[in-house]
Amino acid sequence: MPELRREPVVGRWVLVRTADSLAPKDFEKEEHPYRQAATCQFCPGKEPYTPGEVDAVREFGTVANGPGWSVRVVPNKFPALRIEGGLNKRGIGLFDLSNGVGAHEVVIETPDHFKVFADLSESEMLNVLLKYQSRYVSLSGDKRFKYILIFKNFGESAGASLEHTHSQIIALPMIPKYVREELEGARQYHGFRGRCVFCDIIHQEYQDKDRIVLENNDYIAFCPYVPRFAFESWIFPKRHNSNFAQLSRDELSPLAQVLKGMLSRIRECLSHPSYNFFLHLSPVNYESDESYHWHIEIIPKLTRMAGFEWGTGFYIVPTDPKLAAEYLRQAGEAK
Amino acid sequence: MPELRREPVVGRWVLVRTADSLAPKDFEKEEHPYRQAATCQFCPGKEPYTPGEVDAVREFGTVANGPGWSVRVVPNKFPALRIEGGLNKRGIGLFDLSNGVGAHEVVIETPDHFKVFADLSESEMLNVLLKYQSRYVSLSGDKRFKYILIFKNFGESAGASLEHTHSQIIALPMIPKYVREELEGARQYHGFRGRCVFCDIIHQEYQDKDRIVLENNDYIAFCPYVPRFAFESWIFPKRHNSNFAQLSRDELSPLAQVLKGMLSRIRECLSHPSYNFFLHLSPVNYESDESYHWHIEIIPKLTRMAGFEWGTGFYIVPTDPKLAAEYLRQAGEAK
Repeated sequence: MPELRREPVVGRWVLVRTADSLAPKDFEKEEHPYRQAATCQFCPGKEPYTPGEVDAVREFGTVANGPGWSVRVVPNKFPALRIEGGLNKRGIGLFDLSNGVGAHEVVIETPDHFKVFADLSESEMLNVLLKYQSRYVSLSGDKRFKYILIFKNFGESAGASLEHTHSQIIALPMIPKYVREELEGARQYHGFRGRCVFCDIIHQEYQDKDRIVLENNDYIAFCPYVPRFAFESWIFPKRHNSNFAQLSRDELSPLAQVLKGMLSRIRECLSHPSYNFFLHLSPVNYESDESYHWHIEIIPKLTRMAGFEWGTGFYIVPTDPKLAAEYLRQAGEAK
Repeated sequence: MPELRREPVVGRWVLVRTADSLAPKDFEKEEHPYRQAATCQFCPGKEPYTPGEVDAVREFGTVANGPGWSVRVVPNKFPALRIEGGLNKRGIGLFDLSNGVGAHEVVIETPDHFKVFADLSESEMLNVLLKYQSRYVSLSGDKRFKYILIFKNFGESAGASLEHTHSQIIALPMIPKYVREELEGARQYHGFRGRCVFCDIIHQEYQDKDRIVLENNDYIAFCPYVPRFAFESWIFPKRHNSNFAQLSRDELSPLAQVLKGMLSRIRECLSHPSYNFFLHLSPVNYESDESYHWHIEIIPKLTRMAGFEWGTGFYIVPTDPKLAAEYLRQAGEAK
């Protein structure tokens, strides 16, 4: 019998196939051939082809927009939003609208065209996380922005259009719907019980044990009891934390370890699937909200959304998260 | 400058590329070859291979589970939910769960393996709509069910796994999230303004005119001002109506005309794309809610969801709905 499960933060119901769960071998494999190495504009030596860099990790003595970088942040050449101008909020009949003001940046994670993110060493990954953080802090300085989304698309079916490994940062002038729902759910729970709902979820994961994939002293990675997708995985700081901006290098270093561990296991276990990950961080230039607990969500792209999901917001999860976690743990041991 | 637009029912923000909108030719084409005709279990003569039919439109004198049908409704052989048993609602720590009790049926829309839904005549399509309605009414008789979703996936990238044209019906023991949000939004608007928000949206469409694709006396089809996807299209009864179950044959007939018109235009205009459509109907066995206004949403699958959308519930719409409507109108005239 499949199980209907309700997510405790936003109240989403999902259907989990606890019997006849799909195993990694049951999903279609996707190839990721390198096709565009010769013409790649993210490779070293091609710096003039991107908009001028806004941040980078560079060898001593090298200059902006030349080679010698290990991480490079540039504005998106085809941005979804424009950085210039005012919002000019207005109503048209029933509808509210404003100008599409925002920032859209690209984080080139390594100069090496033939590496994927999981290939990076922990210290290289730490450098990427530090750039995520410095851009988050810097963009927060623009009072027009209310939310900054840091995310990664890997592989064609996850929406990646360029193969050189990179992540993206979008600064928005409002708090998007999913995040607002999470914030409100966390606030309500906190008001009602005096505790962080995400801390309670982590506590529950420790009680149940079998959905935890890996952890270190500071971070825990698990397949949540109520995911939207097969093999969906979340990474949380173990101790309550709503402030990504103030983490020290020493506090981000163990995150690099867990993130690399998870991405390596997902690659190993699921034959190098396309995936998305995104950081759910606190809003910026907004009432501070201590009840939120920032985290990372990773979704391997194994199945397609269809009419049922689009019509309802109700998800059918073909793999029990308990089994997903077991497969991911085994993938770690096999290495 | 792109525009940020806010949807007035559920409050979703989307970004619409009003400049440099993508035209139909800018989207990737998808082929839909017929591969499985020989082994298709939905074809006439193969009736014994499906679970026994629960409803059908049949020639006089033919018997259930034999040939002679023009529309056939059968339980899904691999149902997402099980029809037997109680819900057994319970809590496990933080989480709520219940047994996955529900119905999952398939509506085989024509005996002809080589027709797509848009190929059906208006009277054939009317027969399909009548079966949607009779199953909706029949499943409503089961008091365990709270919501019945009728939907269609066409094409591989819209999640269709069988090529013989069919739609699906899923009866759920709870109201799913998107629908609940629409219901609540409509109720709040009605409480505040004393009017139906969907009636007001239709009124706005008439004022603005340029997003309307087609209409007859009873139904209107338009590309909404705040869609989630390029070329997304909605069909509404023009006069307020919350009760799909009580529509007469004469009231469903003009819906068949508009639905066929829209699906034909979408095929013509967008080179036969994969698509989903779903009916948003009132919940069943639930407080009656006159403030809701049932409708159909059609989403052609032209782009992929990526990390930004998954991370935020914020959509980037690459085609201005005003232009989408113009392309769709032209596709109608060209015929």
